[in-house]
Amino acid sequence: MLMKTAAQTLAEQLCAVFAQRIRDRLLAPGARLPSVRLCAQQQKVSPSTVVTAYDQLLAQGLIEARRNRGFYVRDVPLAPMDSAREAMISGANEAGADGGSLMLTMPRQRAPLNATALIRGMFHGVSNKPQPGMGVLPKEWLETTFLATAVRRSCSVEALNAFSLQYGEPAGDIGLRRALSTKLAGLAVHAAPEQIITTMGATHALDVVSRTLLRAGDYVMVEEPGWAVEFARLDALGMRILPVPRRADGPDLEVMAKYCEVHKPKLFVSVSVFHNPTGFCLSPSSAYRILQLANQHDFHIVEDDTYSHFAPDHATRLCALDGLQRTIYVAGFAKILAPNWRVGYMAAPKDLAERLLDTKLLSTLTTPALLEKAMAWCIDQGQLRRHAERIRTQLDAARARSVKLALAHGCTFASDPVGLFGWVETGVDTDALSQRMLDEGYLLAPGALFHARRTPSSLMRINFASTQEAQFWKTFARLRDEQLRL
Amino acid sequence: MLMKTAAQTLAEQLCAVFAQRIRDRLLAPGARLPSVRLCAQQQKVSPSTVVTAYDQLLAQGLIEARRNRGFYVRDVPLAPMDSAREAMISGANEAGADGGSLMLTMPRQRAPLNATALIRGMFHGVSNKPQPGMGVLPKEWLETTFLATAVRRSCSVEALNAFSLQYGEPAGDIGLRRALSTKLAGLAVHAAPEQIITTMGATHALDVVSRTLLRAGDYVMVEEPGWAVEFARLDALGMRILPVPRRADGPDLEVMAKYCEVHKPKLFVSVSVFHNPTGFCLSPSSAYRILQLANQHDFHIVEDDTYSHFAPDHATRLCALDGLQRTIYVAGFAKILAPNWRVGYMAAPKDLAERLLDTKLLSTLTTPALLEKAMAWCIDQGQLRRHAERIRTQLDAARARSVKLALAHGCTFASDPVGLFGWVETGVDTDALSQRMLDEGYLLAPGALFHARRTPSSLMRINFASTQEAQFWKTFARLRDEQLRL
Repeated sequence: MLMKTAAQTLAEQLCAVFAQRIRDRLLAPGARLPSVRLCAQQQKVSPSTVVTAYDQLLAQGLIEARRNRGFYVRDVPLAPMDSAREAMISGANEAGADGGSLMLTMPRQRAPLNATALIRGMFHGVSNKPQPGMGVLPKEWLETTFLATAVRRSCSVEALNAFSLQYGEPAGDIGLRRALSTKLAGLAVHAAPEQIITTMGATHALDVVSRTLLRAGDYVMVEEPGWAVEFARLDALGMRILPVPRRADGPDLEVMAKYCEVHKPKLFVSVSVFHNPTGFCLSPSSAYRILQLANQHDFHIVEDDTYSHFAPDHATRLCALDGLQRTIYVAGFAKILAPNWRVGYMAAPKDLAERLLDTKLLSTLTTPALLEKAMAWCIDQGQLRRHAERIRTQLDAARARSVKLALAHGCTFASDPVGLFGWVETGVDTDALSQRMLDEGYLLAPGALFHARRTPSSLMRINFASTQEAQFWKTFARLRDEQLRL
Repeated sequence: MLMKTAAQTLAEQLCAVFAQRIRDRLLAPGARLPSVRLCAQQQKVSPSTVVTAYDQLLAQGLIEARRNRGFYVRDVPLAPMDSAREAMISGANEAGADGGSLMLTMPRQRAPLNATALIRGMFHGVSNKPQPGMGVLPKEWLETTFLATAVRRSCSVEALNAFSLQYGEPAGDIGLRRALSTKLAGLAVHAAPEQIITTMGATHALDVVSRTLLRAGDYVMVEEPGWAVEFARLDALGMRILPVPRRADGPDLEVMAKYCEVHKPKLFVSVSVFHNPTGFCLSPSSAYRILQLANQHDFHIVEDDTYSHFAPDHATRLCALDGLQRTIYVAGFAKILAPNWRVGYMAAPKDLAERLLDTKLLSTLTTPALLEKAMAWCIDQGQLRRHAERIRTQLDAARARSVKLALAHGCTFASDPVGLFGWVETGVDTDALSQRMLDEGYLLAPGALFHARRTPSSLMRINFASTQEAQFWKTFARLRDEQLRL
């Protein structure tokens, strides 16, 4: 709640809150600000205070008034490239007219709270409260002493000079690649160290895969709902996104088959195990049919196994079934060990691995060996395995508490609560709700964020590790009920 | 020279040499192998040994025989995306018919020794000899004790946990960005820490810049000769490269002006100071005219200052003149300190910095803080400055020796020998020469590699730090003279 201070008037404070949110893209270009009356009510200030605050935002060029329609976050002027891109996309729409209803492209940052805003929120945090919208475990969960030991092992002058003074192995530290090869064998994914390439986290791996297999204008199938950054990245690269509805047992195969016939997509991006945000796991029969389709229509599959650390080893994975023929395996350690180390990797068919390596070289040259060696040590010493077991136990308890609280506060689950994320039905528009929750210091991940074409949604994704406190749910229920009454 | 052993026949050894070179892309798809007679002569074996070796390569599917034309490295089949891309490029050629002669696009890996092969050579090394084609200083030159100190400072359990367990600051470690801001001020480039974004080396920065400012199909001006990886990367992203001849005082402004009128390029990629491979430095008047052109035709400039550590602070830089209005500054530490740490950065106009940050997030999320903090310490403690001074002195001496040897062995310099690289006129085709030098364990950087459209060249780039031994020049002169006689 805003409180008058000697230094700042209420209007100045309110203006500062909105200005910061606009700069952080938590209120994106084109988003509508609440009406003066509503804002006054929400913030418990007088309407004239809101008018003064909005006037200041207008003067700063951050918002604009539209006659009889209210105040909107000012649109950034279209850069030259954007108009070229829009032309390309609309051209593409015309070309694909016969299958037009199947083809969706993502509008560019027109909705409140976009993908990069969520990522930025993941970093700087909007308050000191536990953040239900976050994609990673709270820092306290990840605290260990063995990370420091792992790094210190390579910190003598000789050791550090040995690998720091040249670019290093293009495919990544061989010790880590050997450790990963063994680790993958435990998931029934058989990849020789030569088939494994390290990257700057799984994000970089997905980037390298799409840049290697796709060209601007190519069609790519992506599960929907899905991870916002993946949609945004493919869109920024000029790819045409074909969203495939994700069901409990896997992607909607009928939709996929139709896409294949109409658009000849080159790639399918899939999170088979503990799918983000639903938590769904792929069934064996669905996996088999996806691979059949891939063979028939000649597309590749990139399997993003980011959540593997929370899942049983025997979960169905496309890469295990296919034996890395048309599949590329992608994973990292950000969810379990050290998000900032940015150690990720991909495993691919031998021929493709060579091409992926070229793309890695062109995008970053090599990756830092120090952190890769440290990660290899954590795996080889069994530290990662034991740590992951601890985390799974802790997460199970947090999930049980979170689910109980969610249900007690009138929510339901759109999918069985498993893994790290819950996919929660709130009964109200979560875009609007997320703005109000921000006022209270909570960053939500509204459902609309997980769609290729942003549409209103009453779902939200929660991180079970940071929703086990009653305080969050009380605030949530209060603001939701307020929204229902409006 | 090949020598018969109990384990392998001469033919088997010869076959193995070619097979490895083909796999390493030191002999690229479509490259012609020497004739049987010539190969026998060069390798000092009988023609029948060569025939047996070539037969084995044929059987392994690595080469193909073309009737009456000899043996060629087998072409990899065009992936589906490549054909789509070729269609796009040829379409683009038609569209730009009036200015067709100005537009060049790079043929895809058809020539021996391509960009990624050179990078791979930079890593694994082709022998234990000093490598004249390498782009970095020899490992011994970079040895210090302070790198280890810098890392160890952040290696306590508390320190490491403090920044490892969250994604970290999107723009990069604030300590490093402050240090860089101060460092840049010394070059008269004024950038607040908020305008600086860290990356995985300068390569990643250039990648982020081009992905932010360009879309597939956009025109981009690049100096020629220029760094092969930059051509290859822009080409892989589907950009259309407009090569601008680089003269002693800067890019050819007439060509640039013509490009601007015909193609409306969006970006100019430039190495102003100690240009790679020529060593040319931009003159103030040329800099001023480039900026005028940029204003008139509304394009951005990315200034790659990779070689700044070897240059005087007062060298003319576009970013200093322009005050980061339309310019983006890019640099890193791979040439002076720790290539494998992959610490690079860019400084950009405030508004653009926000967009660059989004692209960074979509491509790798954050970058590892440990190495950034260590690098900040090296800068803040003056270690980097003192180390760079030592290296410059050492390089001056190495350059003097290298130049003397080069001249003594009948070479001339196509540009004044300064900085790290020499641009050497050999009098023979350096593509062919580089294959023969490989036989002797030397990786060359042939002139053709530095062109957008690969054409035969008698130039080569040498690294002054690794060409100060007479042995290399003796071998070079012998093989060059052999080639002249053929």
